[in-house]
Amino acid sequence: MRTPTQSPTRRERRAPAVHPSPDRRERRRLETRERLYRAALELFGERGFLETTVEDITEAADVGKGTFFNHFPTKEHVLAAYGGERIAAVERALEKARATTGSVLEVLGELATDSAGQSHENPAVLRAIYAAHASCAPVRAELQKRMRTSRKMLAEIISLAQKRGEIRSDAAPIELARVIQTVVIGFTMAWALNPETHFQATASKTWNLIAPSLRAGAVRSGTERKRN
Amino acid sequence: MRTPTQSPTRRERRAPAVHPSPDRRERRRLETRERLYRAALELFGERGFLETTVEDITEAADVGKGTFFNHFPTKEHVLAAYGGERIAAVERALEKARATTGSVLEVLGELATDSAGQSHENPAVLRAIYAAHASCAPVRAELQKRMRTSRKMLAEIISLAQKRGEIRSDAAPIELARVIQTVVIGFTMAWALNPETHFQATASKTWNLIAPSLRAGAVRSGTERKRN
Repeated sequence: MRTPTQSPTRRERRAPAVHPSPDRRERRRLETRERLYRAALELFGERGFLETTVEDITEAADVGKGTFFNHFPTKEHVLAAYGGERIAAVERALEKARATTGSVLEVLGELATDSAGQSHENPAVLRAIYAAHASCAPVRAELQKRMRTSRKMLAEIISLAQKRGEIRSDAAPIELARVIQTVVIGFTMAWALNPETHFQATASKTWNLIAPSLRAGAVRSGTERKRN
Repeated sequence: MRTPTQSPTRRERRAPAVHPSPDRRERRRLETRERLYRAALELFGERGFLETTVEDITEAADVGKGTFFNHFPTKEHVLAAYGGERIAAVERALEKARATTGSVLEVLGELATDSAGQSHENPAVLRAIYAAHASCAPVRAELQKRMRTSRKMLAEIISLAQKRGEIRSDAAPIELARVIQTVVIGFTMAWALNPETHFQATASKTWNLIAPSLRAGAVRSGTERKRN
């Protein structure tokens, strides 16, 4: 992490036509980006999003201050990149759901309880990310866009599961997608505010208790209740 | 909330036998406290918790600065009072569940979808409260205590419903209580970050989709899945 690397973007701008190894250059560029990204998230976790400056980030990542802007136009873009990772995880789940001959509900469960990889973050980072979203309107506007995007993809997955008779079909896919987002926000936030338990264990337990309500059988339980 | 009540504990302590109108005095005290409380929450919503000073609060409430400390030892105590209201709502639900001859699950649903009265707050206030909890360790420690307290009460309500055969009995009450807390945090947070919908409508829709998983019938759906 402490290895000094170059800033290939800047080099590119300087007419790098004669440059020998574009692969290595691209690899280095991505390495630097990743280092800035991890350093930024760690600092957000330690100090808070608002309290962290771009200089703090470049210092922690051991690169020049200007390098940051080759990768992220603003500090907010680090959070957008974080959100981008979540969306990528939903995309992968959608592909998996389309390809699988097994249970689509299981694919959804894996996605939800891994919280799209959020368990790899520490609670302080998650708290800083939540605080930034709660405090900054532009950050929140981006989140809302991303939530709509992933809600649509979740609805596609649910629609697949409905066609296969795995998930109740008396509710619109987009409504069930909203339920899943609510549950995921709920257990990520609950864990971040009170990380006394192991994230994935708690998330799985909660998911397993809630999942029956998504299954085709859930409709019958609803009818039973009316009879009482 | 506007009904004037007494605080007998304090009156007892100070033995105000000769004082003319302890009721009116107490009523005024509570009015001032309520004014400080509402002004503080509004400012937290506008400026953020950290950015709001005690002086901002007393100015907005139109009282002297020292008055604040007669009611709240610190700014954090305003958030504690807010949390106290949530706990009071769970307490009321527990009493209701004990007394009712009707559905206990319905009492739970009312509690969850009203989010203990959170729908009366505007999203900016809720965001400021979440941000404060995410950013301040002492505020968070208080939240954790309150969450444990209300989880225990929720578990009592669930236990009642299990005895009546309303709620599945294959899961421990405390685990189901955690599920309910997760769902409530989820839809309160989701709404606060993205208040495009009406809080109670969205919360009720989500609750109605999730509630079947709590019902006694949910166990059967789980078995059905294993058969597939």
